[in-house]
Amino acid sequence: MKSREVRFARRPEGGVGAHTFEVVETAIREPQEGELIIRNLWMSVDPYMRLPLTDMAGSSANRKIGETMLGDAVGVVVQSRNPSFPEGAIVVSRKGWREAYVSSGEDLEQVDPNVRSLSWYVGILGLIGITAFAGVEFVLQPQAGETIYVSAAAGAVGQVACQLAKRRGCRVLATAGSDEKVDWLMSEIGVDAAANYRTADVEAFLRQQCPQGLDIYFDNVGGRTLDAALRSLRVFGRAGVCGAISQYNSDNYRRGPEDFFSIIEKGLTVTGFSSRIYRARSGEILPPLRAMLESGELKWTETEVNGIENAPAAFASLFDGSNLGKVVVRLSEL
Amino acid sequence: MKSREVRFARRPEGGVGAHTFEVVETAIREPQEGELIIRNLWMSVDPYMRLPLTDMAGSSANRKIGETMLGDAVGVVVQSRNPSFPEGAIVVSRKGWREAYVSSGEDLEQVDPNVRSLSWYVGILGLIGITAFAGVEFVLQPQAGETIYVSAAAGAVGQVACQLAKRRGCRVLATAGSDEKVDWLMSEIGVDAAANYRTADVEAFLRQQCPQGLDIYFDNVGGRTLDAALRSLRVFGRAGVCGAISQYNSDNYRRGPEDFFSIIEKGLTVTGFSSRIYRARSGEILPPLRAMLESGELKWTETEVNGIENAPAAFASLFDGSNLGKVVVRLSEL
Repeated sequence: MKSREVRFARRPEGGVGAHTFEVVETAIREPQEGELIIRNLWMSVDPYMRLPLTDMAGSSANRKIGETMLGDAVGVVVQSRNPSFPEGAIVVSRKGWREAYVSSGEDLEQVDPNVRSLSWYVGILGLIGITAFAGVEFVLQPQAGETIYVSAAAGAVGQVACQLAKRRGCRVLATAGSDEKVDWLMSEIGVDAAANYRTADVEAFLRQQCPQGLDIYFDNVGGRTLDAALRSLRVFGRAGVCGAISQYNSDNYRRGPEDFFSIIEKGLTVTGFSSRIYRARSGEILPPLRAMLESGELKWTETEVNGIENAPAAFASLFDGSNLGKVVVRLSEL
Repeated sequence: MKSREVRFARRPEGGVGAHTFEVVETAIREPQEGELIIRNLWMSVDPYMRLPLTDMAGSSANRKIGETMLGDAVGVVVQSRNPSFPEGAIVVSRKGWREAYVSSGEDLEQVDPNVRSLSWYVGILGLIGITAFAGVEFVLQPQAGETIYVSAAAGAVGQVACQLAKRRGCRVLATAGSDEKVDWLMSEIGVDAAANYRTADVEAFLRQQCPQGLDIYFDNVGGRTLDAALRSLRVFGRAGVCGAISQYNSDNYRRGPEDFFSIIEKGLTVTGFSSRIYRARSGEILPPLRAMLESGELKWTETEVNGIENAPAAFASLFDGSNLGKVVVRLSEL
């Protein structure tokens, strides 16, 4: 049995691209006692995967050249010598970026196959759902009548954050990277106002929509967008920060906003969150998200890419803002 | 009647010094109907007064060359044609940096003369008390058993923050700029551990004292101290930021920490606060502080400077960390 996998081929100078990776074919050996073979169905590409590709001084978490990329995947057990995972079981793992592999059963989670799409497990019922839900429901807790601004609102996390905030009775302002996305946010997601950050002045948009100052900002973007949002928050406003995608292709993705001092002057509260630190609370997060999805209360949009050979380009495209919703890569049919 | 006042003479290149200001003698005119003459007893010098001396592009709040400096002062009414403020009344104003002046009665607050020292009104019963109390009691709310780190702990705000945190049952770690201050923090203020940041490695001190990571950081300093504290906070740790004195003499005092991204990774909460935005709650703050002072539960230490001619040097000295507690300038005796 053969499998293709994606390896880290060269450290990106500036932006990542398909050339950052190579697709390699490997042979899958027979499973030993206790092992099983998983054929992946869907894998995820996510912005955070960019971070260990940068050679940060002193970080031991850097991906090494030649290593296989890691990420969330959902697969099916196709051969098993492990009674916990029978053939046909659907499992979620951190062994994405490969078509098939031998697993010892460690770090596998068996999941309910009866969902509308198994791809949900690498998105709304995975890291993305955890991030968006924790940010809105645990961290920011927007109240009815408050105005919240969500950047990258047509992205994976943003689309969910917008809807959860609407559900809590907020007025939702959104930005995205194309006029089509702006239309979609207004008509499909139901935000109250939206702007294309490539053509509009975000700060002017926020000031026009909320002259008294934003109550809340949900940050997916960092950089200039975070700068504009901090300037637009009212006294005692709050910001939740879960990523800085605009900075990930730069030399120092860890840098902060230009005007940190506004946090002091306006008494702002800035709170970080990520799926990694809220994963422990997934039992409070995923069941309500699934119920909202199944009732149709929550819409979930994916951009599908087919075939592992297209995963590198799909990953690189995350940073040019060309996709709608969550980008998932289909590796095989069930 | 003559009065001396301090004017802003030249924009500081780098650090402020006595040469930044000039002391000018003026004549005090007779009060008209509704006016009164105030002779100031104490004036305050505070780090925030440094900010409008920097020529920040686009800021309309900059102090102009030749303008008289402003700041909190407590004075006595020596002549009055305003029935609300009889002669002998003690009043707090924002007209510091001058010995006497004619007031219309606007923006004056008449205060109780029966306190141990009237200088308290430009410190612990003024902006300093509001800042420290709001930071500990409203923003950070440290819980018994938590470990909190207070920087500039032997300064005006720091000494109060340390004691309020101890009172809530916290373990308090402190840094200050001399071995004498460290001894004083341990013996007089009762912190649990203290280090001299000029000779010790602050991050190593924090790691040694709290290997599992700080729960809370109370920031008075910004710059490298904030960097070290953010690195030392545990997951879900929180920081209160009320000033960045280490940055005020630099070109960009508004800059943030080196590693803003740690806020995301560790799920930190950073909240700003200042006396300006919590002044509206002074009714909840000043009575308990006064009760703690009078019962001896709260210690309050001042460094006294005599005479308005020494106010510029006293102000400049705030940035070299040479003073213990709050710096106050005595302008006259009651």
